[in-house]
Formats: sequence, structure tokens, C-alpha cells
Amino acid sequence: MAYGLSRRALRPKVPLRPGEGEKHRLTSLEGLAALSLDALSSVAYGPEAIVLALVAAGTGALTATLPITLVITFLLATLVISYGQVIAVHPDGGGAYAVAKQDLGPTPSLLAAASLVVDYVLTVAVSLTAGADALASAFPALAPDKLLVCLAGLALLTAVNLRGVTESARVLMLPTVVFIVAVIGVIVVGLFRTHPVAVVGTYQPVHATEALGLLLVLKAFSSGCSALTGVEAIANAVPTFRSPRVKRAQRTELMLGALLGLMLVGLAVLIRRDHVAPRGDVTVLAQLTAGAYGDGWPYYVTNIAVALVLLLAANTSFGGLPVLMSLLARDHRLPHLFGLRAERPVYRYGVVSLAVLAGALLIASDADTHRLIPLFAIGVFIGFTLSQLGLVRHWATQKPAEWKRHALINGTGAVLTTLAGVILLTTKFLEGAWVVVIAVPLLMLLLARIQRYYTAVGEELQLGKVPAPPDRRTGSLVIVPLGEVSKLARHAITAALALGDEVVAVAVQADPEKARALRESWDRWNPGVRLDIIDSPHRSLVQPIVDYVRRVSGDGRQIAVLIPEVEPTHRRYEILQNQRGLLLATVLRARTDVVVCMLPYRLRV
Amino acid sequence: MAYGLSRRALRPKVPLRPGEGEKHRLTSLEGLAALSLDALSSVAYGPEAIVLALVAAGTGALTATLPITLVITFLLATLVISYGQVIAVHPDGGGAYAVAKQDLGPTPSLLAAASLVVDYVLTVAVSLTAGADALASAFPALAPDKLLVCLAGLALLTAVNLRGVTESARVLMLPTVVFIVAVIGVIVVGLFRTHPVAVVGTYQPVHATEALGLLLVLKAFSSGCSALTGVEAIANAVPTFRSPRVKRAQRTELMLGALLGLMLVGLAVLIRRDHVAPRGDVTVLAQLTAGAYGDGWPYYVTNIAVALVLLLAANTSFGGLPVLMSLLARDHRLPHLFGLRAERPVYRYGVVSLAVLAGALLIASDADTHRLIPLFAIGVFIGFTLSQLGLVRHWATQKPAEWKRHALINGTGAVLTTLAGVILLTTKFLEGAWVVVIAVPLLMLLLARIQRYYTAVGEELQLGKVPAPPDRRTGSLVIVPLGEVSKLARHAITAALALGDEVVAVAVQADPEKARALRESWDRWNPGVRLDIIDSPHRSLVQPIVDYVRRVSGDGRQIAVLIPEVEPTHRRYEILQNQRGLLLATVLRARTDVVVCMLPYRLRV
Repeated sequence: MAYGLSRRALRPKVPLRPGEGEKHRLTSLEGLAALSLDALSSVAYGPEAIVLALVAAGTGALTATLPITLVITFLLATLVISYGQVIAVHPDGGGAYAVAKQDLGPTPSLLAAASLVVDYVLTVAVSLTAGADALASAFPALAPDKLLVCLAGLALLTAVNLRGVTESARVLMLPTVVFIVAVIGVIVVGLFRTHPVAVVGTYQPVHATEALGLLLVLKAFSSGCSALTGVEAIANAVPTFRSPRVKRAQRTELMLGALLGLMLVGLAVLIRRDHVAPRGDVTVLAQLTAGAYGDGWPYYVTNIAVALVLLLAANTSFGGLPVLMSLLARDHRLPHLFGLRAERPVYRYGVVSLAVLAGALLIASDADTHRLIPLFAIGVFIGFTLSQLGLVRHWATQKPAEWKRHALINGTGAVLTTLAGVILLTTKFLEGAWVVVIAVPLLMLLLARIQRYYTAVGEELQLGKVPAPPDRRTGSLVIVPLGEVSKLARHAITAALALGDEVVAVAVQADPEKARALRESWDRWNPGVRLDIIDSPHRSLVQPIVDYVRRVSGDGRQIAVLIPEVEPTHRRYEILQNQRGLLLATVLRARTDVVVCMLPYRLRV
Repeated sequence: MAYGLSRRALRPKVPLRPGEGEKHRLTSLEGLAALSLDALSSVAYGPEAIVLALVAAGTGALTATLPITLVITFLLATLVISYGQVIAVHPDGGGAYAVAKQDLGPTPSLLAAASLVVDYVLTVAVSLTAGADALASAFPALAPDKLLVCLAGLALLTAVNLRGVTESARVLMLPTVVFIVAVIGVIVVGLFRTHPVAVVGTYQPVHATEALGLLLVLKAFSSGCSALTGVEAIANAVPTFRSPRVKRAQRTELMLGALLGLMLVGLAVLIRRDHVAPRGDVTVLAQLTAGAYGDGWPYYVTNIAVALVLLLAANTSFGGLPVLMSLLARDHRLPHLFGLRAERPVYRYGVVSLAVLAGALLIASDADTHRLIPLFAIGVFIGFTLSQLGLVRHWATQKPAEWKRHALINGTGAVLTTLAGVILLTTKFLEGAWVVVIAVPLLMLLLARIQRYYTAVGEELQLGKVPAPPDRRTGSLVIVPLGEVSKLARHAITAALALGDEVVAVAVQADPEKARALRESWDRWNPGVRLDIIDSPHRSLVQPIVDYVRRVSGDGRQIAVLIPEVEPTHRRYEILQNQRGLLLATVLRARTDVVVCMLPYRLRV
């Protein structure tokens, strides 16, 4: 899984709040619990993706699962070593986007940003569908409604994240530990058995449609690479570790690598020994679980733990993408509104965008994990490659002691992840990877376009230059649109008199009789302010006022229109009020350059 | 059909615009073309509704169609005579709502309003489904997609009416004339034939499930009463006639009655003679058309004309309901926004409400005419009854010559329509009329509740009383929230200086370094205005400003917050701008009582 929780570290260093001292930072083991979620949960779908790819050549081809897994584990080892160096060089964390921006320049950073966005969205979608698969393995009745299960999970995550509940490492620990214990248990217990204790799921006949050639092996390899997503999470989150940070983070990265490698190889051995083939309605992991524990309560506990961990893995994207989007907004590459946090400390526009995009993916793929896998991991591998290329550049420019050895390590990592990325892209192109190939450049283009716009605006506003001193206007005129004489009118005229050098009230009236009545009651009130009544035979209210405002503009005075608004006590009454004022304000702001002022009048009813 | 076009007459007398002189008013014949649409188009579903009700007692029961139609025609005659008197007493038009408000008091007028609303919505729904039935009779391929056809028609009507295209009597004439000629032709040609020329549709076996008892006859009668909807349209539109108005309108009403009666009886005779029973995929009218003309092009032309006339009949509700809703808004019985016309002379909220409600009905009934018929006509009959009761009251209070004879006529009409209404309600209660029985009182309650709210607000605002003179405040303070020094800042400070006695700029800044830089560039600019920098460690922008505003409030000065807004040239860039200012404005308006001013700054990019 991807970057989630760790991306928190991307936030510019905020001064610690009370209670955020050193002892609240993570030890190596706590770090493992909090940050390995994304990576470890991939074992729920990575091995399965290999099996599903290979079975196209018949059940006999499944023996290739183990060697392919070993190659993936080798790649994992390279990544772990390479990321050990990333941790040392970037102790302040920072994901592929920050590293690429610093070391590689604008275009690679745009590439990093776009592929990260794609990957965060896919992490949510894949984690949810894999979680639904795990749940459906335990409760087959859910199988026909997987999409609904996924959308319900997405709705839950969205609601929780809009409310701004921050998960803590402590909360994540329990399901992670249960998950690790259960999966390791499946491997150990399974290896002690001579044959599976129980068989779950329905038999599916296998028809070989291809021979086991190089292409199929590469396909299976690239599907299995989805198991590597998430190993960069620790490197991104170094600042959350207790000191000595770098050492602890490196140790955690090693533990994660060892654990993930162990799980992948162990599951592959079991798959080979038990001749596990895809069966209807259950996942490969569920089959192995039943083989080790039987189909009693441990089977249910394991599947539920898997589903829960996958849900939490999806949640990490909700921690990650909105923060990334706020960084992009700060770099003027996304609309500034993505950097807005209103009432709760939540980037709500980012959260909502993620939910909408993930929901669209879920619906488009009909919540089928195996349709999403070909799109997945490509973005991650772009991130892997960019991070390591950045480091190579770093070594080559800084040239510290032993820089060549360091550069060699990261260079090897970069070459391997590039290679894997190219394999991913080519073998899966027609199966869905083309979507990523289209989406990433389009996103880059969009980000660049937005940045160009903001730059142009900044130039026009002469940001960073000293402007001319403000004009001293010759005075001000405040126009108050009114419908009748009332306490509301008094309230508005009072405010207008305080703000304007001159105040004039304006009423639009179609009916001459009513106009006369208004004039009379105005004269009776006699507030010391002129009232202009505009005749409007067409019963339109807004345009006559716009015309009036335009007529009186242009004599050098500052013109303001002050619109009094009745504010009811209950929100449900709002539809009964204010609509006219809001409409007038909207049109005035669109068509004139005057100041538009809204003055609330709070009702007691 | 209902009141549509005619409801235009409900608008308070607007002085004629150029070109609206006497010669643009309607002659009797033109009035027939323009105002009979609603009523005449009912022959497309009225006779069919009778047949469908009777067939429950087997095909033999269909002989009852003719006597039932004769009773309905008798009711029609009573209505026509009674409405002749309505025309004489209310030469200014005015529908059941206006008449009930004038003659019967608040509660009956609420009843009239609620039943009119229900009926307008049903008119749209029933006309569209019946139109789709007619189309599907000509083009059987459309039969499975009737709902889609209806929704497409509704979307078309909504779009046209939102654009504010006003139909003219001339435009309506052609399809109306084609329709009348075609239907009369069906009857005349049909009666000359000894047996049907062609048989369309698929045979449907008929299983008698009931005996032909009184209940079934009453049911068939009440279904057939849907053919009477729309006869009040002419009485509502008297002012659109050329003088002598009353005479012409009465003549048109008589012609409408005669034409509608002729059509209904003629079609019933044909139904009886040809033993027409419901057949799959075609309407009864389509069967009669094929029987008279064969299944060549005249069959297609007639069905298309029927569909078109029904679409136009649905359109009349779009002329009617929004105007009624604006009247209700003027009477403070609906939110005032229903009385708003923004840019085009269109009550867009009314149009949209009608579209939403009709769309919901179409979806709920799956565009099945025969599921809607039991809901239909009840509202119309309430309107019939109220109009005539109002007139009885009028005769009894005014006591002109021969008032007893007049009162007797209207009284008879009222009794008959009440009777018919009660039959409608009781025989159709379980089939859907209960919806109306619930909806109408709920709507009345809602209207009354809204009126109560507005009355309370009016009292609190002391509408109609002379308020105290406006306060003279001791001065004003204008607060300008700013992010950086730029031309935008200059623009804002310039406006603020013109409006306020004192001006202060406020910036929220989390980063002490950036705060220092801002302070420096402010001092370099030196605009003669104090800058307060608020520290916000939590990166929230809005709340610190709200707190600041609250702190400086309360010293008797008028406080205003002036928010400068960058206005891009293209609307598509708007998402890139303004969001922060809008958010701040919204929160300030909700939580403080200060004046909130928006100042546009128009970009050239």
C-alpha cells in the first residue's frame, strides 16, 4: 500500500503542540505497527494476483509462483537497502514529490505529483475491494454485493476523515498485530500440516488458454509487484520517530522488509505445496487460512482482521492525498482551495476529491480487485524511481565520502524499479495500464496549467513589489436598496451613515400606488436620507438597481451598495429569507466594480 | 387538462406594453384554439380510463362505456353553464385560488391553492405519459422506454420554460386544429365504416375479476371524469379576449363544451360498436384511429398530433404553476424566492419545482398513465367546487336581480362536482387517491405555516410603523484581511479608506519568518494604515479573523470587514480564486453582526 499516514510528515514543521513531546514519538516497534500497515496488507492481494495471472497457463503453471515471488523479494531487498539511504539523506521525511522538487526540478516533481495522486486513489480502491474480498470469503452472502460493501466502506472513511478524527499509532497497533500474528501463524501452522485441514470456496475448472512463456511470467511478476506498494512509507515519516531518528527508522525499514519478505515467500511456499488454485468466492489467502486453521472461528478472525487492516490501509490515503494536495496548492499547482482548512483541521476539498475519484474507480471496475491491479503499482514505481534518481543526483553533486558506493546502491535500485515499471506498463497496457498512461500526463498538464495561471495572476497583482500608495478618494456614496420602511431599513441606514459620506436609499417599485405609499411613509419617517424610487414595469428587481448603480458610478467617489439581510434564528427558515439580497449581491459583484456590503439583521423568530 | 395558459390572467393587471393592444386579443375562435388545449387533449386518456376500469368485469361490461360517458357529458354541460356565470361575475379572470380568497376566506383559499398545486403537477405527469402512450402506439419500439420518453419531454419543457420562451395563441393553433380535425375525422369516418379498417396492437386476453356492479360503474365514472379537467381554463382567461370579453368568452366556453361533449360521446359510440377492448402497446384512441383511417400515414399523423397536443397541454402547467406560486409568495404563503424573476422574465424556482415534482411522480408511477389517473382530477374537482361555491356566496350576498336562479345554477354545479369529487375520492382511495388526501392537507399546513412565519417577521420588523430615526454612530472601523502586499492590497486599502473613519489591515500568518517578511514589505510600502498580524499556529485562517473582529467590536463604532476578491476573466478560473474570501465572508456573516463587504478586483488574465 501507499504512503498514507507517513505523508503527514510532509507538512512543514509545525511547532509541537503540548503533549507532542519526544515520548509521544515512535520507537522502532511502534513505527512498525503504525507505518507498515500499507505494505503488509498488500500480502492480501499480491500473491493472489500472481496466481491469477499464472493460472491462464493451467494449474501446472502455478509452480512458477515461488520463483516469481523470490524475484519480487529480491527487488524488495534492493528497495529496503536503497530506502535506508533515503532515510539518512532526508531525515525530515518528504515523499517522492518533495524529493523530486528538491533534487530533480519542476517536470520530474510534476510527474511525481501526478503519479502519487493516481496511486493514492488506487490505494483506496484496491484496499477496499481486497477488503471486501476478504469479508466475502468469511461471509459468502456478501459476495454479490461487493460494490456496495466497498462504497459503504468508502462512505465511512470519508465521513470519519471529514470530521477530522486523527488516528494514532496506538489505535492502529491492535489490528496490525492481530494481522501479523494471524498471517505468520497461517504460514507456520500450515507448514507443519501435511495437507490442508479444510477446503473452502467452490471448485472452478481451469482451462489453460496460454502457454507458460516469458510474457506470462512477466505478467505474473508485474501483478505481484503490487505487493511492494507501501515500503516507502517509513522513509516518508522519519520525523515521527524518537531519536536517534535515522537509526530507528532504518531499523524499522529493515524489519518491515524482513517481515514482508518472509510473508511473501512463506505464502508462496504454501501455495506451491497445497497446489492452491483460484476457487470461487474465496481469496487465496483465505484458502491458505482454512488450510492451516480449518474453517472454525480462527478462519473468521483472520479474514476479519485482513479486511480491517485493508480498511485502515485505505484510510492512510485519506491522511496522505489531502496533505499532498495542500502542498500542491501551496506551490500554486492546484486551486488554492485545497489548502483551505475551515473549521476542523481537515482539508475537506482534498478528502472529498479523493472520495469522489475512488468511488468512480470502484464503480467503473465493479469493485473487482483484479481489474484494478493492472492500474495499480505503476504510480508507486514511478515514485520509487524518482526518489532514488533524486538520491543519485544528490550523491553526484554533494560527493561525500564513499559517494560512489552510495550512488551505486541507489542507482541499482532506480534501474531495477525502472525495469519493473516498464514491465508493469508493457505487460498490463491493454488490461488497464493505459488509463494511467493517459491520466498521469493529463494531470501533469493540469498542474502545470494551474501553476501558469497563478504565475500570471501574481505578475498582474505585482506580488512582491511595492505598490503605489493607496488613492485618496474624494468621498464615498453608500446605496441602500430597500423594499419598505421598517426596523430593517433603520438598521441599514444607520450602518450606511457610519460608512458613507453620502447615503441614498433606493427602492424598485412597479406599482405606482405602492410607490406613492412608500414615499409617504418615508417622508413620515424622515431619516435624513434621500429615497430614490425606480419604476420597473417588468417587475424585475435586480437589473434596475444595477443600472442605477452604474449611473451614479464614475465620479471618482467610492461607491458601495449595502444590502440588509434578515437572518432567521433557524437554518430551516433561511430559504424564506435573503434570497433576493443574495441574488442582488451576486449580480452586482458580477457586473459592477462597486463594493457590495451585506448587513445581517438577526431575527428573534 | 388544467389551467395553464389561462393562469397568465392571474397576474395583477400589468399596463399593456406596446403591441399588446385590442387587436392582439383573442376572438372566440382564437380563444378556442389557445385555451381548449388542456380540455380537448383529455379525450386521449379519458375514454381509455373508462374502458380500462370496466374491463375488470369482462369485455361484456364495456357496453357501459356509452351510458357512463353520457353522465360525464351531462356533468360537462352543467359545468359549462355554471362557468358561463363565473365568466360574467369575474370578467377579470382569476382561478379558483383568487376566487376562493375573495369570496370564501383564508382556509378555502389554502385548499384551492394546495389542490391547484397538486393538479398542475399531475397535469404535467399525466399529459406526458399519455403523450408517450400515443407515441408508442405509432412507434412500438418506444414502448419499453416510456419513462425515458416522458423524462426527455419533461427536460425539454423545463429547458424551454427556463429560457422564458412564451408561447403565443398563434403557435398553438396549428397542432390544435390538426388534433381537432383528426379526432372528429376518426369519429365521422369511423361511423361511416361498417367495421374497422385495420386492427393495431396485440391481443390481450381479458379475465373478468369482478361483476359489473355499482362500485365498478362508479369507478369507471370517476376515471372518466379525468376528461373534464381543463374546462375552467377559459373562465380564468377572460381578460385575454377581445371585447365584448364576457360574451366572447362565454361563446368560447360553449363551443369548448360542445366540442368536448361531441368527441367524448362520438368516441364512446365507436368503442361500443367496434367492441374496443384494451390491446397491448396501443391506446384506445389509436385503435379507433386505425379503425377509421387504417394503419397508413393518417394513423401516424394522428398519433403524433395527439402526442404533440399532450406535450403542449403539459406545457400549460409550466405557464400556470410558477405564476400561482408567485401569487402565493406575494401572499406570504410560499418563500418569497418564488416571486423572484432574475434575468429572464421567468419564475425559475417555480419552473424547477414543477419539473422536480413531476419528474418524481413520473418515476414513482413508472410513467404509467393508469397509475396516475386515480390521483388526477380530484384537485380539479376541488377547484370546480370552490369556484362555484364562491359564486353562490356572491349571489347570496350581492342579491342582484334573479340572484336565486343564478345561485341555483351554481349551487347545482357545486353539488354535482362535490358529488363527483366524493365518488372520485372514495372509489379510487386505495388505488392512489390517498396520496392526494395526504398531500393536500400537508401542503395547506405548509402554506399556513409559512404565512405565520412571515407575519411574525413582519411584526418583529414593525412593517408599516414609523421606526425611530437612525442612530448616528460615533464612527466606523474598516478591517481589511490581506495575505500579502500587492496591487490587490492597494485596491482594497483605497476602498477601505474611502468608507471607514479608521482602517486596519489584518493578516493571519503561521510562519514567523513569513510574518516578518510581510511586516517588512508593509513598512516599505507604508500605506498609512496599521497592519495587525495574527499568529495562527493551527493554520486556520478564518477563526482568527472572526476572533479579531469580535475583539474590536462593541465600542459603538460601525465595524465593517472589507474582503478584496480577485475576479478572473473566465468563469472556469473561478475555482482557482475567491474561495478563501467567500469562506471568510460566509463565516463572518453567520457568526458576527458586522458589515461584510466584498470588493471585486478584475483581472486581465
